[in-house]
Amino acid sequence: MDAEVLARRCAAVMYERDRASQRLGIEIEDVGPGRASARMRVTAEMVNGHDIAHGGYVFLLADDAFAFACNTYDQVTVAAAAEVVFVRPARLGDELVAEAAERTRYGRNGIYDVTVRRAADGAVIAEFRGHGRSQDRRVLGDQISGRVR
Amino acid sequence: MDAEVLARRCAAVMYERDRASQRLGIEIEDVGPGRASARMRVTAEMVNGHDIAHGGYVFLLADDAFAFACNTYDQVTVAAAAEVVFVRPARLGDELVAEAAERTRYGRNGIYDVTVRRAADGAVIAEFRGHGRSQDRRVLGDQISGRVR
Amino acid sequence: MDAEVLARRCAAVMYERDRASQRLGIEIEDVGPGRASARMRVTAEMVNGHDIAHGGYVFLLADDAFAFACNTYDQVTVAAAAEVVFVRPARLGDELVAEAAERTRYGRNGIYDVTVRRAADGAVIAEFRGHGRSQDRRVLGDQISGRVR
Amino acid sequence: MDAEVLARRCAAVMYERDRASQRLGIEIEDVGPGRASARMRVTAEMVNGHDIAHGGYVFLLADDAFAFACNTYDQVTVAAAAEVVFVRPARLGDELVAEAAERTRYGRNGIYDVTVRRAADGAVIAEFRGHGRSQDRRVLGDQISGRVR
Repeated sequence: MDAEVLARRCAAVMYERDRASQRLGIEIEDVGPGRASARMRVTAEMVNGHDIAHGGYVFLLADDAFAFACNTYDQVTVAAAAEVVFVRPARLGDELVAEAAERTRYGRNGIYDVTVRRAADGAVIAEFRGHGRSQDRRVLGDQISGRVR
Repeated sequence: MDAEVLARRCAAVMYERDRASQRLGIEIEDVGPGRASARMRVTAEMVNGHDIAHGGYVFLLADDAFAFACNTYDQVTVAAAAEVVFVRPARLGDELVAEAAERTRYGRNGIYDVTVRRAADGAVIAEFRGHGRSQDRRVLGDQISGRVR
Repeated sequence: MDAEVLARRCAAVMYERDRASQRLGIEIEDVGPGRASARMRVTAEMVNGHDIAHGGYVFLLADDAFAFACNTYDQVTVAAAAEVVFVRPARLGDELVAEAAERTRYGRNGIYDVTVRRAADGAVIAEFRGHGRSQDRRVLGDQISGRVR
Repeated sequence: MDAEVLARRCAAVMYERDRASQRLGIEIEDVGPGRASARMRVTAEMVNGHDIAHGGYVFLLADDAFAFACNTYDQVTVAAAAEVVFVRPARLGDELVAEAAERTRYGRNGIYDVTVRRAADGAVIAEFRGHGRSQDRRVLGDQISGRVR
């Protein structure tokens, strides 16, 4: 199977299971081998009394882009660790886009860089680096031997 | 004002404004100078299809404990950066407790260590380190010169 | 073998091999299960033109304390990653002490916190967190079955 | 002054003061606005008994590339914090090259990514991320108003 097709298929399977991301209205875009973007609008449930987004939701969006990017090779990969820098606040109503790109892979490990930007003007909201660790399981699982294949 | 009293008063003011934490049912406990705990139950909206908590919500809880701990001196302090290690998964229904303790402060900076545990058995779910940066504003703000004082 | 004795024996074997640390005059102290201290004086070769220690040598000292601490169980453990915060500069002639303490272990992984202080007054120079990953080899190796035993 | 020229001039002034880097034979290359490379050969003084480079020296090289890259704007910038992942060991005799590139700057802060590679085959030895904080001092200092200008 073509690597680009495989990557998108993995993302589709993951998204279907990811109720948390679905509920927050997160959309996954631009998926390819080792890369993915995640888009989310800051809603009233994500902000504090000053209408500034809780850092946890900014992290969650970046973590999603990372998770989708590192699972594009049909090998289940879990987030082992991450670092985040909060560059500027996101506000109620802002649409945010997190772009994840693979930096390097070695053994079962992978490092992914994610930049979260405000969609309206491209201003950087956060810089994130995620560390994934892959397991001996396939993302596509049963699907691969069944109907989807 | 006594440092313990001041710390709790700051937390009360912060919590009142923090709609995101309130909505998730997060409770803040054991607040004192440079320390705070945050408690949260993993609900259906926080999990994926395998009933495992999204790492973003585990981070959010740790980030909350950190934010409350570093704002206990009545000086507004924002999260500048954080690192998290995901030690083991949290599951639907698990009650999690994040305990934040100050490691060191210097200039406008502070470093806080947060351990997230499963309440039932104390198993470590995540280790988090937060980096705060304080500003020239008070947490208690108007309250200090008004009725609360 | 007693855990304290085993820890010190592992440290002795490691130190004997560690030419880099020996050459810098680093001394290892207070070794026990999951803990170790490393002591070093800032020499002329470690400073820049303003007599301030290069951050690389401060990191190296912290990394040493971490490496000795995580190899105290007679299981070879390598540094997989680390984070460091430079709190204040160290200067020519300063004696520095790095104290490493285990935060948590899980599977083959361990997290160790190291604080580097100026010995003269205890001022914090750096805060370090190291991530170790253990291998299927013993630290004591041949020694255990040979003369040292 | 042209930004490329200014960057190289800052690096020249910094290098002249940096006795620690000089003594280790580190060479600074490819300096421009927000970028720099540092090259070093792993010598006998940098290794342990298995001829593997001490992680402290790998960090030091990456830290150098970072320090030179973030001081290219003629504003003194100090390393506030850094994270490093050790991807594979470097060995006695290996020539290492650390390439630093700016990821983002905001306020007085800057984030720089550094990859350390083995020169012979480009294999990644370490991934480093440095956090700089700039001060109200110029790198060129007296030089700018004196002879060098």
